[in-house]
Amino acid sequence: MTFKRFLNEAISPWMKEDGPESNIVLSSRIRLARNLKEYVFPTLASKEQQQAVIHTIKEAVSQDATEQAGPLEMLMMNELQPVEKRVLVEKHLISPHLAERSKEGAVLLNEDESVSVMINEEDHIRIQCLYPGLQLQKALKRASSIDDWIEAKADFAFDEERGYLTSCPTNVGTGLRASVMMHLPALVLTKKISRLIPAVNQLGLAVRGIYGEGTEAQGNIFQISNQMTLGKLEEDMAEDLTDVVQQVIQQEESARKQLYDTLKLQLEDRVYRSYGILSNSRIIPSNEAAQCLSDVRLGIDLNMISGLSKSILNELMILTQPGFLQQYAGESLNAEERDIRRAALIRERLHFENR
Amino acid sequence: MTFKRFLNEAISPWMKEDGPESNIVLSSRIRLARNLKEYVFPTLASKEQQQAVIHTIKEAVSQDATEQAGPLEMLMMNELQPVEKRVLVEKHLISPHLAERSKEGAVLLNEDESVSVMINEEDHIRIQCLYPGLQLQKALKRASSIDDWIEAKADFAFDEERGYLTSCPTNVGTGLRASVMMHLPALVLTKKISRLIPAVNQLGLAVRGIYGEGTEAQGNIFQISNQMTLGKLEEDMAEDLTDVVQQVIQQEESARKQLYDTLKLQLEDRVYRSYGILSNSRIIPSNEAAQCLSDVRLGIDLNMISGLSKSILNELMILTQPGFLQQYAGESLNAEERDIRRAALIRERLHFENR
Repeated sequence: MTFKRFLNEAISPWMKEDGPESNIVLSSRIRLARNLKEYVFPTLASKEQQQAVIHTIKEAVSQDATEQAGPLEMLMMNELQPVEKRVLVEKHLISPHLAERSKEGAVLLNEDESVSVMINEEDHIRIQCLYPGLQLQKALKRASSIDDWIEAKADFAFDEERGYLTSCPTNVGTGLRASVMMHLPALVLTKKISRLIPAVNQLGLAVRGIYGEGTEAQGNIFQISNQMTLGKLEEDMAEDLTDVVQQVIQQEESARKQLYDTLKLQLEDRVYRSYGILSNSRIIPSNEAAQCLSDVRLGIDLNMISGLSKSILNELMILTQPGFLQQYAGESLNAEERDIRRAALIRERLHFENR
Repeated sequence: MTFKRFLNEAISPWMKEDGPESNIVLSSRIRLARNLKEYVFPTLASKEQQQAVIHTIKEAVSQDATEQAGPLEMLMMNELQPVEKRVLVEKHLISPHLAERSKEGAVLLNEDESVSVMINEEDHIRIQCLYPGLQLQKALKRASSIDDWIEAKADFAFDEERGYLTSCPTNVGTGLRASVMMHLPALVLTKKISRLIPAVNQLGLAVRGIYGEGTEAQGNIFQISNQMTLGKLEEDMAEDLTDVVQQVIQQEESARKQLYDTLKLQLEDRVYRSYGILSNSRIIPSNEAAQCLSDVRLGIDLNMISGLSKSILNELMILTQPGFLQQYAGESLNAEERDIRRAALIRERLHFENR
């Protein structure tokens, strides 16, 4: 099956490239929520109605290829094993909602996994574009072109006054959610993060953990996104978020400099101890692994440690999530077994990198 | 200066050999306390009287070489720097008392440092013989022969009823202190040590840390020695201690087996994490280093880790003591500087071992 490639590689091809500000910004994401005019919205639709939606979209997208994303492949949720869906969630290609709660869900993915279009999630269509580093405008441009391409073949639910209509009122208007994934270890170490988060919230932005709402900031990775989808142009929303992200980058950079200038050896000790634990432990819980990976990545960014690729944090953070570990093991694993597999996988990966 | 060799090598040549039970017993030591009949005992003697004692002994030992220990070299305490004396203490070649509190102290050392005769410590003469592993009888035989050799040239303070007379009444009689240094990590991990120590005490034996009375059991190294010096033949004292040590060995072995059988992976995780910390940290306090070294040595004993020599625990425990670190650095170091040097030294040593 061709979709296996989406499951076997921990990091998507688009992630392997370096983007602007990639020392701190891991990725940028634009999501557009759309619904088809003639169909009941997914939250109220029956299974048959949802199937009809899939059929319609499938017809539409199979007419031609997108200019900007290449051919799209459709994966049906009900044809995937739970662990396979979990892997797609861990790669941020689908949402937990689509994996677990959708009656008749599907996703369209392009070759390098930078474009994913979820069908029958909370809305009929959720277009998602991902870019490495800080590239919200670029992601928005691509998402908009895919939006246009689909809209040319299907009527979207649109109101002159309210804009695009969505299942949840918080998405009405532009249907846009822009978000960036930031690695902020120095702000966490210096405890400045506790003042930063409320300040960012006051600007109408949300700060969350690596797997979105209600998740922890494992590995000092934070997701910053807009809360409001109304009252501004899409470009302005992306621009405003970019401005705030730039400020957070500056704060993280100055915290890194401060640590480097005043506690260089202590920081180096921390970075290398974490490296020592990652390359030697036989049992490692996900929180500890994430913290150690964050330390090592910081060490790479500060040129304290060499011979390791920058993508190690992104890659191992995803690779050592429960779904991936089980996919990799080919069997379901309990928490203890996962901690053992996680340790083995990290050791192998670091050993491979060292040769 | 020839005595430099005593200062530069962390482990004495005799330590490099393997003795019986060396998985658990690091070394055996016999010490005999003797005093010269015609001189005031050191605790009450003036500086001049102590000088006379040194002179007498020097004359006596320079007449011929010992048959069993080879030529002896004399080091005068007042010709050594504080850090040099500290190094000799860390190597267990002299006592802290001789290094710091003796008015006119000296030590005679043989080539492989297995024999050390302290002069003007608490007693005029303290003969010490060291052997790797559990070899108390052998050490006693050698100490007795050196005792005989000195006694042939000098009159010892001896009372028909009380035996050899000493400054402290606890040493009167045989003047014998027999002790073994044991590595007991499994008894510590399983907390069985807390029941074992009182049981050993009840047999009239003392259990102490690596640097004797009042010191901590750094690195899970315990010193077990006799308390009484009266009422038994020397051979029986050594035999009785050997019997108890054999029992402690059995207990440690069974605790190791229990850990291996029930918690092998957890133990392996601990051993390798400690190895990872030792080979990567940039700042390491002595307690943490000792604990990690103990873990690694246990891992070597249990064949969990390979390519490392068994003597790594002994060697690095001594090499990373404050005196040695400063001797090695060629300057005096504060606690923080020592933690940095210690980490560097351990890393170098492990790196060297790995090649």
